[in-house]
Amino acid sequence: MCVWTVGGNQSRLCAAKLLVESGLNPVVLEARNRVGGRTFTVQNKETKYVDLGGAYVGPTQNRILRIAKEFGVETYKVNEKENLVHYVKGKPYPFKGPFPPMWNPLALMDYNNLWRKMDEMGKEIPMEAPWRAPHAEVWDKITMKELFDKLCWTRAARQFANLFVNVNVTSEPHEVSALWFLWYVKQCGGTMRIFSTTNGGQVWSNSGSVSASETCTCSLLVHFHKRSKQVFRLFQAKFVIIATAPGLHLKMHFNPPLPPLRNQLIHRVPTGSVIKCMVYYRESFWRKKGYCGSMVIEEEESPIGLTLDDTKPDGTVPAIMGFILARKARKLAALTKEERLVTVPPPQPVHYEEKNWCEEEYSGGCYTAYFPPGILTQYGKVLREPVGRLYFAGTETATEWSGYMDGAVQAGERAAREILHTMGLIPQSEIWKQEPESVDVPARQFVATFWERNLPSVPGFLKFLGTSSVLTAAVVASLLAYKRGLIPRS
Amino acid sequence: MCVWTVGGNQSRLCAAKLLVESGLNPVVLEARNRVGGRTFTVQNKETKYVDLGGAYVGPTQNRILRIAKEFGVETYKVNEKENLVHYVKGKPYPFKGPFPPMWNPLALMDYNNLWRKMDEMGKEIPMEAPWRAPHAEVWDKITMKELFDKLCWTRAARQFANLFVNVNVTSEPHEVSALWFLWYVKQCGGTMRIFSTTNGGQVWSNSGSVSASETCTCSLLVHFHKRSKQVFRLFQAKFVIIATAPGLHLKMHFNPPLPPLRNQLIHRVPTGSVIKCMVYYRESFWRKKGYCGSMVIEEEESPIGLTLDDTKPDGTVPAIMGFILARKARKLAALTKEERLVTVPPPQPVHYEEKNWCEEEYSGGCYTAYFPPGILTQYGKVLREPVGRLYFAGTETATEWSGYMDGAVQAGERAAREILHTMGLIPQSEIWKQEPESVDVPARQFVATFWERNLPSVPGFLKFLGTSSVLTAAVVASLLAYKRGLIPRS
Repeated sequence: MCVWTVGGNQSRLCAAKLLVESGLNPVVLEARNRVGGRTFTVQNKETKYVDLGGAYVGPTQNRILRIAKEFGVETYKVNEKENLVHYVKGKPYPFKGPFPPMWNPLALMDYNNLWRKMDEMGKEIPMEAPWRAPHAEVWDKITMKELFDKLCWTRAARQFANLFVNVNVTSEPHEVSALWFLWYVKQCGGTMRIFSTTNGGQVWSNSGSVSASETCTCSLLVHFHKRSKQVFRLFQAKFVIIATAPGLHLKMHFNPPLPPLRNQLIHRVPTGSVIKCMVYYRESFWRKKGYCGSMVIEEEESPIGLTLDDTKPDGTVPAIMGFILARKARKLAALTKEERLVTVPPPQPVHYEEKNWCEEEYSGGCYTAYFPPGILTQYGKVLREPVGRLYFAGTETATEWSGYMDGAVQAGERAAREILHTMGLIPQSEIWKQEPESVDVPARQFVATFWERNLPSVPGFLKFLGTSSVLTAAVVASLLAYKRGLIPRS
Repeated sequence: MCVWTVGGNQSRLCAAKLLVESGLNPVVLEARNRVGGRTFTVQNKETKYVDLGGAYVGPTQNRILRIAKEFGVETYKVNEKENLVHYVKGKPYPFKGPFPPMWNPLALMDYNNLWRKMDEMGKEIPMEAPWRAPHAEVWDKITMKELFDKLCWTRAARQFANLFVNVNVTSEPHEVSALWFLWYVKQCGGTMRIFSTTNGGQVWSNSGSVSASETCTCSLLVHFHKRSKQVFRLFQAKFVIIATAPGLHLKMHFNPPLPPLRNQLIHRVPTGSVIKCMVYYRESFWRKKGYCGSMVIEEEESPIGLTLDDTKPDGTVPAIMGFILARKARKLAALTKEERLVTVPPPQPVHYEEKNWCEEEYSGGCYTAYFPPGILTQYGKVLREPVGRLYFAGTETATEWSGYMDGAVQAGERAAREILHTMGLIPQSEIWKQEPESVDVPARQFVATFWERNLPSVPGFLKFLGTSSVLTAAVVASLLAYKRGLIPRS
């Protein structure tokens, strides 16, 4: 019995591992000259080791935490002892907690209402079938930009909302379907969970070890690398798991061809744009100044949108990780590493590493595939529907933490169990499995405060004011003036 | 000297032809077991011959008209002697001319304003660089649906606008960037020209002969078909022209890899969705009833959105061609040919042919690639930018009639001349060439009538009414009632 698994990520690792444990002999095919897919660890004397691809894990990501533990991959908390910084309108504002606070009362109402509304809309969307949400058709016809334009009354909220999309899915709000993005946030556990995964007191995994350990688990790893003569080798298998991002199916040639919807789906779900940058310093000077190294940067001129401390847990190799996201990644994608390095502000770094994921032929981008408007409702249902003996894994096919390493694990194990079920080795009810909570990284519930639950939205506030109609005119006038930028943001 | 050309269409034909005429020896590579790409001619006793892919040409498409003439491909006018039919709200309305008329005065104003506005916006957009339009950034961030929602006051205009997008680019208004669609219409000569190309008194070409004649012009045609052993054959060339739709570059493996923006572009421009249906009858019964066979169908329940008479010019083989477009193509894509046939209304057809372009692995869809919101401004500039010795043709890279066979010719010849220029055989000024007008199919100017130029828009009309303010309230109220569907459309 022979099962191919194609793709370069944790999804394939976990599919192959589960199949090996079930007594089967998977053959693993790889187009690159390395394993790991969208995870990529570099080791050298300057950095010791550095993850230039997927690296962060967090609470509720119980599957990847299990796999990491099994392979003895150590995790540690990203440093967030000191203040975080929200950089906006040319000034740094220190803060604590997952989200930067808003000081203007109108912006605060607006901002609070935005997260609440997005989470409320998410509650309607089934994780396993977002195209069946009651308002799926309507929400899929609008972009997140349209939704933000409808929900947000203040420029402050709208701008932060933009960054929220950039950071979470490395795309622009006008590029993604509102239905898809609301689903994406929901299946990560909501607005608080998804943002604090990179911004809160989070856990960090040297996932490089995860990708490196992949080789051990497979009875045969075949590189299909272009330079290799093995490109002409032929394999036969009873089943195939394809564990790549959907768009990379196009790198393969199918006979018989894929069914029509799948044939079109794979042209319609591009992967986002990001350059991951690591800047190394003589010392972690930011900590001395009372900053932890996390920055949320809303400046059009800044290439970087988000930073985190990347110093090793023992305090050695002081470093800051920064993401160049979406439109900014495309703007800077064609530069050389050296040209990008000169955009790093002082002090002078001692070393620089980066990975431009836009140029990876066998990833197409990072972190994950996004759905432009109209695609999820028209093509979503075939995303993980097996085609004959082809089964589909890859983080994009997951129903929890899709887009993350955790989703890759869920997808790979599910695809492997689909095959085990087809072979009559397990019942259908065992294809999908709940994952027990990690003992080492338990999840804390996010409890909404009284104000978060009850603060009115801006239009709600105006309605309330309507009872004292003398005031209303003045407030509406000043609000509109604010909305149009006549009154500067405090 | 050896030049590869990859791809299956007129673009490759014309590139190879021009290179042969310049004394070079192009090698033509083909992945399918047929030539023609998105043109596809079937010959059998029931139909004599039938074009199941690209078939229609028209005035101002001077390049494909030249090529057709050169190869002795005959063209003839599609029958539009009798009435056309606009099918809406369950009833057929006969009409003459390119667009169905609107009888409701508000709808007429709205409709007239829509075409006028789209053409006005198009005037701002440079055909060769739409990303440089003064409002490129803003228009690329919205979909055509958003633009229609802004421009249209009546449901009648909005619904017809939807069909206009479906028919012209086999996609949905919410899927495409407004900037891209406005450019697309503009580079076809405007709203009248693009719609009357399929709907007016148009010329028809048995393009099958064009694709068949391709073999003659090439010194060597190599099929890279999957079943063929030749998949392992290696070629060396000084230059390569890739003449496929951009998304099909993904079927190739590049070493060195493509630059980052091109690597991401090719994941972001899917090809539309269409099933072309040909229904054959004992006699052309529609002509006897005073109908020419052209129907514009605005019924959600009808699979077909547009029909044309496909009877042979000598009156034999009576047939109606129908397009299943965009959302409807996806809905019916997974059915079999037989299942789709049963949806054809009576009378009983004597024969049925169809081509579901959604299932074509080496086309990805038909007619052409579309740009979702945000892509044209971020990636457009690399669309036909050579990469080392790679040059890019294919109708998507054209600046006139892109998306059509005519654009394919422009692109193929331009790419061939780019190579001739690089080789020092022609000056840079000769890469792009104007095409003289076809003698056989001269273009008639569309002259806007006084009313088309001067009829107010709905908001303009309201403003005018504002001078007699007593009336205004009543009109606004009835207009809003109409807009919300309280007053039935006449």
